Amino acid sequence: VSPTATARRSATAAYDELIHRVRDAHLLGSTGSLLHWDQEVMMPPGGVEHRSRQMSLLARLQHETLTADRIGELLAECEAGGLADDPMSPAAVNLRELRRTYDRRTRLPADLVAEEARLASVAQHHWVEARKESDFQRFRPDLTRVVDLLRRKAECLGWPADGEPWDALAEDFEPGCTARDVEAVFEPLRSRLRALLDQLRGGTPPDLAARRVRVPLERQREAVRAVAEQIGFDFTRGRLDTSAHPFCGGTHCNDVRLTTRFREDGFLDALSSTMHEAGHGMYEQGLLAEHVGTPMGDAVSLGIHESQSRMWENQVGRSLAFCEWLNARFGSIFGLKGPDAARRLFGAANRVEPDLIRVEADEATYNLHVMVRFDLERRLLRGDLDVADVPEAWNQGYRASLGVEVPDDARGCLQDVHWSGCMMGYFPTYTLGNLYAAQFYRQARRELGDLEGGYRTGRFQDLKAWLNQRIHAHGQRHRAADLCVAVTGEPLSADPLMEYLEGKLRPLYRV
Amino acid sequence: VSPTATARRSATAAYDELIHRVRDAHLLGSTGSLLHWDQEVMMPPGGVEHRSRQMSLLARLQHETLTADRIGELLAECEAGGLADDPMSPAAVNLRELRRTYDRRTRLPADLVAEEARLASVAQHHWVEARKESDFQRFRPDLTRVVDLLRRKAECLGWPADGEPWDALAEDFEPGCTARDVEAVFEPLRSRLRALLDQLRGGTPPDLAARRVRVPLERQREAVRAVAEQIGFDFTRGRLDTSAHPFCGGTHCNDVRLTTRFREDGFLDALSSTMHEAGHGMYEQGLLAEHVGTPMGDAVSLGIHESQSRMWENQVGRSLAFCEWLNARFGSIFGLKGPDAARRLFGAANRVEPDLIRVEADEATYNLHVMVRFDLERRLLRGDLDVADVPEAWNQGYRASLGVEVPDDARGCLQDVHWSGCMMGYFPTYTLGNLYAAQFYRQARRELGDLEGGYRTGRFQDLKAWLNQRIHAHGQRHRAADLCVAVTGEPLSADPLMEYLEGKLRPLYRV
Repeated sequence: VSPTATARRSATAAYDELIHRVRDAHLLGSTGSLLHWDQEVMMPPGGVEHRSRQMSLLARLQHETLTADRIGELLAECEAGGLADDPMSPAAVNLRELRRTYDRRTRLPADLVAEEARLASVAQHHWVEARKESDFQRFRPDLTRVVDLLRRKAECLGWPADGEPWDALAEDFEPGCTARDVEAVFEPLRSRLRALLDQLRGGTPPDLAARRVRVPLERQREAVRAVAEQIGFDFTRGRLDTSAHPFCGGTHCNDVRLTTRFREDGFLDALSSTMHEAGHGMYEQGLLAEHVGTPMGDAVSLGIHESQSRMWENQVGRSLAFCEWLNARFGSIFGLKGPDAARRLFGAANRVEPDLIRVEADEATYNLHVMVRFDLERRLLRGDLDVADVPEAWNQGYRASLGVEVPDDARGCLQDVHWSGCMMGYFPTYTLGNLYAAQFYRQARRELGDLEGGYRTGRFQDLKAWLNQRIHAHGQRHRAADLCVAVTGEPLSADPLMEYLEGKLRPLYRV
Repeated sequence: VSPTATARRSATAAYDELIHRVRDAHLLGSTGSLLHWDQEVMMPPGGVEHRSRQMSLLARLQHETLTADRIGELLAECEAGGLADDPMSPAAVNLRELRRTYDRRTRLPADLVAEEARLASVAQHHWVEARKESDFQRFRPDLTRVVDLLRRKAECLGWPADGEPWDALAEDFEPGCTARDVEAVFEPLRSRLRALLDQLRGGTPPDLAARRVRVPLERQREAVRAVAEQIGFDFTRGRLDTSAHPFCGGTHCNDVRLTTRFREDGFLDALSSTMHEAGHGMYEQGLLAEHVGTPMGDAVSLGIHESQSRMWENQVGRSLAFCEWLNARFGSIFGLKGPDAARRLFGAANRVEPDLIRVEADEATYNLHVMVRFDLERRLLRGDLDVADVPEAWNQGYRASLGVEVPDDARGCLQDVHWSGCMMGYFPTYTLGNLYAAQFYRQARRELGDLEGGYRTGRFQDLKAWLNQRIHAHGQRHRAADLCVAVTGEPLSADPLMEYLEGKLRPLYRV
C-alpha cells in the first residue's frame, strides 16, 4: 500500500466523520425549523416562552457542533488527502462550502454571536413598538447598536481588497456576491425600469375589479391548494397551511411546509403568495435526499431561491396563458363573465403603480424599493450615513426612485423587519431573484419551446422538470453566478428581466 | 463563615447547576414530544425517515445529558450539603427523584439501551404484520427476544428482596409500586367485579340507539371542542386535533396538545375520548410553570395520570347529570326527543358487556382485560410461562375472567402494541388509574358536596380547581401511594371503584 493510498484512506474516514457531524448539526437545525413552523402555524399563545428556550438550546448545540475544533481537523485532513481535488465532485463541493462556513463561524468571537442574538431579539421588539407609533426616534438607539455590531462583525469576517463592509455580511445570504456585483446589474436595471415606468404613465392602466371580488375563505383554500398541486408541489412530501406572514419552511426535501394567508377580497393575493411559496417549496423538494444535510443537498443562495418563487409567481402566475387556465378552471370564483374574462384577470394581476410599501409592490416597481434599501445599508456600514439621518435619506430615495412622498416612518424606513433582526446585505437578494428568474425562464423557453401553450391546458410539469434537472438537483455544486452561466450560457444581466417586463406591460398599457 | 455554611453554599451552587442541566435535558425531551405530536397529527408521509433520525438524535443527547458523570457528582454534592434534609421541600423532592432516575439510567449498560431501542422498533414492525395476518407465530421470535431483554434489564435494575422481576420494570411507569401492591387491590376488585357482572347478566341492558346516531364530522368537531373547553381545558395553552390514535402530548404546561378521532356514527366515542384526553391535558396544564423541567413540575405516575383522564371520562362524562347537560346543550345532535332523552344517553353510555378488545371495553370489564395481561407478563418475566404458550394462556385467561372465547390471535394476544415496544409493567397503570379516579372522586364529593348539581348547569370548575390544588400543583412531591393517603386519608382500595360501579350500574340494569 503506497503512502498516498493510506493518506487517501484516512482522508475518506475523516470525510465520513465530518459528514456525520455536519448531518447531526443539520438534524438540530431542521428540528429548529419545525419548532419555528409550529410556532407560526400551530402553537397556542401560552407556548411562546418555552418555545424560545427550546429554540435557543438547539441553536447553541448546532453552533457548538459546527464550530468544534474537530471539524477544523477533519477539514484539514480531507483537504490534505486530496478529496477536494476534483472541484465538481460532491466531496469537493461539500468541502469547499464547509470550509467556507467553518472559517466564517470560527472567525466570530462567541460574545459577538451571543450579543447579536440578544440584540436581534430586543431590537425587533422595539421596532414593533416604534412602527406602531410610527416613531423612528424610538428605534434609533437600537438601530445604532445594530449598525455598530454589524460593522464589528464585518471587521471580523473581512471583505475583498476592492470591496466594502457590506460584502462581508451579504456573504451569508448570497455567497460570493459583492456590492460591486450587485451594482453592475442594478444600475442598468434602474434606468430601464424608470424609462418603462415613464412610458406606462402615458398609457391606459388595466382595470382592477377582478382583484377585489369577494370569495369565501373555504373556497379560496381549496382553490389555492389545487393550484399548488397542479403546478407540481408534492403534497405527499409537504403541507400548505395558514399563517400571519406566508413562508416556506419544513425540515427536509421530503417534508416541506408552505403557508399562505387569506382575505375575503384578496383571492388573487392569496393565489400569488401560494404560488410564490410553492416555488420555494418545489426547489426544496427538488434537492436530492441522498445529499440532505450537506451543501450538495442545500440551496445555492437566497437569490437563487427567490428566483424559483418569483418565476412561478410572476413569469407563470401572471402570464395571460395561466390566467386563461385559471379562468377556465376557477372562473366561477371570480364571477367574471364574457370572452375577455381571462384578459381582465391578466390585467388586474399586472397593474403597475409606484407606491410606499415594498411587500405590496408590483413586480416592476418592487426592484426600486430594494435599491433604496441597498443604497442606505451600504452607506450605514461604510460609516457614510448617520443612523439619525436614515428617515430623511429613505424619504429622499423614495422621492427620487419611485416619485412618491413618504408620509410617516411607519410607511417609510420602519416598514421592514430585517434591520431590527441584524440583517443587512439581505434585501438585494429579492431583486437578484427577479433577475435570475427572468434569465432562467428565458432559457427554459428557448429549450422547451411553447411553455404557455401547456399552461392553457394546466400542463406545468415541463418547466418543473427542467428546473429540477438544471437547478435543484445540483445543490450547491455551483455558486449563484456560475450556475447562471452553466444554465443560461451568460452571466447575470438586467436584459432578460427588462425584456420580459417591457414585452408584457407595454402592450397591456397600450404604449 | 462556618464550614457548614460553606458546604451549604457550595451545595446550592451544585443544585443550581444540576437543575440547569436537567432543564436542558427536558428542553430536548419536550422538543422530541413536539416532533412526535407533529408526526402523528401534521407530518406529510414523506417525512417519516428524516423524523426518526431527528428523534433518535434528540433522545441520544437527552440520555447523554442525564447520565453524564457530572450529574452524579452534583447529586452527591447536594445530598452531602443537606439540601435533601427536609423531605417535602421542592429541592429534596427533586433530589430524591433525580437520584432515583439517575441511578436507574446509569445501571443500564449502553448496549442494552441501544438494543432495546432497536428491538422495539423491529418488533413493532413485525407485530403489525403478525396482527394483520392474525398469526402469533410470526411475532413469537420477537416476543422471545423482548422477554429475554427485559429479564436482563430487570437484573441490571434490581428489585426488592421480597419482590420479582416485574417490579423492576414497573418502576418506570408507577414508581414504588410492586406486583404485590397491585395484587393487593386487584384481587378484591376481581371478585367483586365478577359478582357485579353476574348480577347485571340477570338485568335489563340499556338501549344503545343513542350511541349509533350519525352526526356530521364538522358538528362533532365543534361539539367536542366546546365540551373540552367547558370542563376546563384551556385553549390559550393548548390545542385539540385529530389523529389515528387519540393521545395527549405537547411540550410544557402552557402548550398541551390533545387529539381525538371521529366516525360519523361514533359521536359518543369521540366525546369520551376527548374528555379522557382533556383530563390528561388538564393535569399537564395544572403543573406549575415554575417547576417545569424538574420532578416538582412533572406528573406522579402513569396511574395518577390515568386517574385524571378516567375521572373526566367516566365519573363526570358518564354521569346522568352530565348527560342531562349534554342533552340540553347538544340535544339536536342526537335527535333524541322526549323527557327521557338524557336517560337514554346515560344508558347508552353505560352499557356493560364482556368482550374481546381492551380498548373498546366498558369501564367495568376493562379492568378484567388488564388483569389477564398483568398475570401473563409477571409469569413471562419470572420464567414461569413460555412465550410459545402465550396464546393458550391468553385465551384461558379470557375464558376464565370474561367468559368469552377468543376466536383468533388478532383479537387475542396480538391486540396490544405494548409488548412489541418492550413495555411490560405498564398495563396495570390503566386499572390503577380507574381505582385512583374513584377514590379521589369520592373524596372530592365529600369535600365539595353536590358536584352533579353543577354539571346539570355546565359548571365543572369546582372539581377542576380541587384537582389543581390537591393533585396537580404538587408535581412529584408525593409518590402515588402517599398522594392517595394525603388526598383521601386512606390507602388505595378497591372499594370506591366498586361502590361507584355498583351504585350506577345496578339501578341502570334494574337488579
